[in-house]
Amino acid sequence: MLSFARSASRASLRAAAPARVASRALATPSGTMFTGVWPIMATPFRPDESLDLEGFAKAVAFMAEAGADGCTIAGVLGESNRLTDAERAAMIEAAVAAAAGAGRPFPICVGTSHAGTHATVALSQMARDLGAAAVMVTPTKEVAPQSDAALHAYFAAVADGCPGLPIVLQDHPASTQVFMSADLLVRICADLASVRCIKLEAVPTPTKIRAIRDAWASAPPAAGDCTILTGLGALYAGFDMEQGTDGFMTGFAFPEILAAMNAAARTGDLDRAHALYAAYLPLLVFEQQPGVAVRKELYKLRGLIASGHVRKPGGQIAPAAAKGLADQIARSLPGRDITKPLVL
Amino acid sequence: MLSFARSASRASLRAAAPARVASRALATPSGTMFTGVWPIMATPFRPDESLDLEGFAKAVAFMAEAGADGCTIAGVLGESNRLTDAERAAMIEAAVAAAAGAGRPFPICVGTSHAGTHATVALSQMARDLGAAAVMVTPTKEVAPQSDAALHAYFAAVADGCPGLPIVLQDHPASTQVFMSADLLVRICADLASVRCIKLEAVPTPTKIRAIRDAWASAPPAAGDCTILTGLGALYAGFDMEQGTDGFMTGFAFPEILAAMNAAARTGDLDRAHALYAAYLPLLVFEQQPGVAVRKELYKLRGLIASGHVRKPGGQIAPAAAKGLADQIARSLPGRDITKPLVL
Amino acid sequence: MLSFARSASRASLRAAAPARVASRALATPSGTMFTGVWPIMATPFRPDESLDLEGFAKAVAFMAEAGADGCTIAGVLGESNRLTDAERAAMIEAAVAAAAGAGRPFPICVGTSHAGTHATVALSQMARDLGAAAVMVTPTKEVAPQSDAALHAYFAAVADGCPGLPIVLQDHPASTQVFMSADLLVRICADLASVRCIKLEAVPTPTKIRAIRDAWASAPPAAGDCTILTGLGALYAGFDMEQGTDGFMTGFAFPEILAAMNAAARTGDLDRAHALYAAYLPLLVFEQQPGVAVRKELYKLRGLIASGHVRKPGGQIAPAAAKGLADQIARSLPGRDITKPLVL
Amino acid sequence: MLSFARSASRASLRAAAPARVASRALATPSGTMFTGVWPIMATPFRPDESLDLEGFAKAVAFMAEAGADGCTIAGVLGESNRLTDAERAAMIEAAVAAAAGAGRPFPICVGTSHAGTHATVALSQMARDLGAAAVMVTPTKEVAPQSDAALHAYFAAVADGCPGLPIVLQDHPASTQVFMSADLLVRICADLASVRCIKLEAVPTPTKIRAIRDAWASAPPAAGDCTILTGLGALYAGFDMEQGTDGFMTGFAFPEILAAMNAAARTGDLDRAHALYAAYLPLLVFEQQPGVAVRKELYKLRGLIASGHVRKPGGQIAPAAAKGLADQIARSLPGRDITKPLVL
Repeated sequence: MLSFARSASRASLRAAAPARVASRALATPSGTMFTGVWPIMATPFRPDESLDLEGFAKAVAFMAEAGADGCTIAGVLGESNRLTDAERAAMIEAAVAAAAGAGRPFPICVGTSHAGTHATVALSQMARDLGAAAVMVTPTKEVAPQSDAALHAYFAAVADGCPGLPIVLQDHPASTQVFMSADLLVRICADLASVRCIKLEAVPTPTKIRAIRDAWASAPPAAGDCTILTGLGALYAGFDMEQGTDGFMTGFAFPEILAAMNAAARTGDLDRAHALYAAYLPLLVFEQQPGVAVRKELYKLRGLIASGHVRKPGGQIAPAAAKGLADQIARSLPGRDITKPLVL
Repeated sequence: MLSFARSASRASLRAAAPARVASRALATPSGTMFTGVWPIMATPFRPDESLDLEGFAKAVAFMAEAGADGCTIAGVLGESNRLTDAERAAMIEAAVAAAAGAGRPFPICVGTSHAGTHATVALSQMARDLGAAAVMVTPTKEVAPQSDAALHAYFAAVADGCPGLPIVLQDHPASTQVFMSADLLVRICADLASVRCIKLEAVPTPTKIRAIRDAWASAPPAAGDCTILTGLGALYAGFDMEQGTDGFMTGFAFPEILAAMNAAARTGDLDRAHALYAAYLPLLVFEQQPGVAVRKELYKLRGLIASGHVRKPGGQIAPAAAKGLADQIARSLPGRDITKPLVL
Repeated sequence: MLSFARSASRASLRAAAPARVASRALATPSGTMFTGVWPIMATPFRPDESLDLEGFAKAVAFMAEAGADGCTIAGVLGESNRLTDAERAAMIEAAVAAAAGAGRPFPICVGTSHAGTHATVALSQMARDLGAAAVMVTPTKEVAPQSDAALHAYFAAVADGCPGLPIVLQDHPASTQVFMSADLLVRICADLASVRCIKLEAVPTPTKIRAIRDAWASAPPAAGDCTILTGLGALYAGFDMEQGTDGFMTGFAFPEILAAMNAAARTGDLDRAHALYAAYLPLLVFEQQPGVAVRKELYKLRGLIASGHVRKPGGQIAPAAAKGLADQIARSLPGRDITKPLVL
Repeated sequence: MLSFARSASRASLRAAAPARVASRALATPSGTMFTGVWPIMATPFRPDESLDLEGFAKAVAFMAEAGADGCTIAGVLGESNRLTDAERAAMIEAAVAAAAGAGRPFPICVGTSHAGTHATVALSQMARDLGAAAVMVTPTKEVAPQSDAALHAYFAAVADGCPGLPIVLQDHPASTQVFMSADLLVRICADLASVRCIKLEAVPTPTKIRAIRDAWASAPPAAGDCTILTGLGALYAGFDMEQGTDGFMTGFAFPEILAAMNAAARTGDLDRAHALYAAYLPLLVFEQQPGVAVRKELYKLRGLIASGHVRKPGGQIAPAAAKGLADQIARSLPGRDITKPLVL
């Protein structure tokens, strides 16, 4: 059902998709943008802390080759808070160019969250002007004490400032300390047609997915194809699928595994989805440990980047963690050449 | 008083275990107190918010029957921050009485962390006087800005106030916002013979275990049998075992599973340990989702308590989560009667 | 003037004050409980960290003698988070006994905030049963992410658990990280007749006072005599009076000064209120510096307690601060014997 | 490079000041850069949220005219967290150009704190290249859990990346949640000659000033002219002067008042310094209320900017606060034309 790879144009790309199974929980509108697997890209740096755009472009191209539906750059684990605006611009250009070479539509979503509303709009406009297909936005803590109305206004300002640009609303209290109720999310989606996706990362995710889906029955989003994607390294993927996630937007560096799980769920085969989830869960658990160093080591092991350097003040991977990761890959994917896209 | 680990009954309990292999990482002193599996007990409440001491005693007895090495009460997920001091006293008495009926030494450790140093000492003395074998202590945030010296002084005060009483030092920044470096932990252990165990819950746990074990080679703890136990619902158990955890002190309600993993690791059979970890990881992941409601539902499903009520302002389990849990148990333990201790 | 304070001694104490003018902003219902000056009491400890009940009783009696309208014990700066429940009980008894000797009604309000709703109720019932006239309650952070409804429910539970017991709702985000909008406060007051006072400490206080007073015009509190008292060491007293505070509930150890300002404001003489505020502001600023050590030093200088010891992990007063305080008193109150109630 | 302090124009500016007395606490090296009064500039925005560079330049020029010793832009209350990098560049250029027209050396210091070390360096280099005389840097919270060594490394990286560029180390835990001990600050100053000033805003400031000065006696800063300036709206100015602050770097919009206080302190006339402090304290207290809206209103009243608009999600000034401010100015500066520099 995630047929992206089968055609040249995006419209025709989705035409080939098999009829969706009649499951309320799993049904998503045809032609939706944010379904399937959207890797959140790590940002490669050289040991001297400089930005490695070549490695970045290579990693984006690899994700397309590996079957991802799009990718998101400059997210939290893309070390976006350690980038200057000029570096952001260079990254967007590099990613858009890499996506253009994918042989099929491969949309780039850009994280543009900023403490100032005006600056969020400015960064979003820049992303759009440089060819991004969407932006991902999460509020900062300062917005939160000012009530749900302030949170609503923040997203409205981004929508107003970039008419027509799809917005992924990120709900990630662990990094923002901003708690948005399911009710608030539903209201924002109902009011703002630009909000095309909720990137849901407020634990426990399965019950929040359920609460939103239930509310959407009576208060549907303004965007007919608004979806829910979950993140958190896909730690809860099995349970998120049960409650109706539309896919995954997360940094786990094996999108092939997520795509296989999601494909099974899309066809209603939750048993297979759960079996895949269980099979790869030790690797998922290892990979989502705090700190982006593990993720970058995995990029390195897959041959995408030359250095797994994390920008300061972030920490580098500990030798014990590097060995543990290699050991777990050997257990999870014995005998596989992980420098090539996997066929599962 | 704390000689239980050396007693015959305990020795026979472990008689079936193969001889420990001579592995530096895995070796722990014989007769150590804090090894194996120590469940952190949930605190049962009735729907009217009152304390259910009968259910609590039953749960403690069950953990002993299921092969746990001791248990810890009034921890973070024991909703200790929602208890009055009188309720704590009643719980300690109930747990100590239940343990006395276990047919073998079954030590009770009591969480006594308090924002005030003097009150931590007072609660620890109370625990000791009521028959507890040890206390578990973690500093509050107010201590932290005042430097490592203040954190050291906090633990020293508890040790001084309760001579001879074993202390489990809990390192859990997610709940306390207090970050203790491996260096600081090593120094505290070197100086205070009362500190018999580090309950290590600072992610990523595997690398911190490694850092502490490496440092202990040159700066050993004052307590010859000081150990490391990991928590966090055993989410990282497989990787913690690789790096040399001495066992688990966590609330996962199937101590049998943790004990089987730990027994394999103790004998040097890390392959079996990893296989068990992988086999039960979906259940571990589900169970450790934030909020204690899932854990209490599991107690209920195991027949230990009548109500899974969480004290306000905590939230009750969502129907979707209850169903998800039941489904996962069916996948993880098909056909098993979980109201009885499992044989794995 | 102040209700319970109908006795002759109090009447004569205030005899000099002119009749209250008919000002909407400044008018408070006759017979109201929470008006005037309510010191938040520091809790004295001996250098060995033990509770000094004699000093505590002496300090309470002094506040009555100095013209306070009541006092609040076990508040944030009463180091309530460093007390055991037994110590709280002893303090309530000591305060109630001291108040009984005041020769006029002198109500004791007790801080009973607790992370658990049930425990807040239990501590409030204990306070009431030991003779307290009211309780002061502020929510903890865990309540906040769960929405305004959860905050409302928290106060409702306390009201339900202690029918008829007056509640002071404390709004102090600096210590709680809980942000309550003026709207929410107005709604809680409208629904719960037990809420008799808002202790308003959310900066900027003057504008929040104004917002609440404006809202009360159309949505009055259920308690006809519900008032607003401000705290924060009276740092903003001059501006709070302009916007209609009903008085001060704060720990500044010269209630005589606050009473003089408040008396001037009550009679509509804001010029005199401002002049008094300006005259004593350097002392107010010095005293409200973070840490309770300065306040305790002031108690010591007034002859109320033998030791200004702050319980650990709190810090003791620095010599430079002790000297600075003495110097400022010499500048603010030259030649005065501050061990006696001041006549201003 | 930064010889402005030695120039004739500056000398004449201060000609009226009596010779500095030989007081250890008050003595600062002659020719020091960071002494006196350095306003932290507010950033003006138009009601449509756009940056008002004309107003900004006018305000900078006014501060020079009013006798300030330099000024700092893009600080916390300059809403730096709501600016894009391009806006920062435009502001630096505007400020440097305005300073060039001051008729005397008027150095511009630029806040360049960033969550990423590399980006802090990049922003600092940009500031230097655009003509800034210094940068002000404070660590973000992510640095803090990694120990004092990480904090030290952060400042070392900025110093290394911008050789010779003076750094103002800002210590402001209220906004950063980063707590730096006096010991750590002393060590950083001893190791890094680029650190020319500590902007001390960790309460209580007077005792921390004293602790640093005492430590400097035996562990002097590498920069011979390293100073301490205090901020926090000069709320504690009187007490900071007693303990030896070298002046004020804060946003209070009447630098004339701060300069008068500081001049008195420099000459050893602490009585006059305290008298001035007491005289203007109500205005200082009003102005330092949280939120930058009050400060901007004051800029407007002084005729510096056309709109006091605060960028979203920040809040605008409440009518009650605007009136309260006007009233307080009338009380503090009766009959004065505040659109002109004041002579005190």
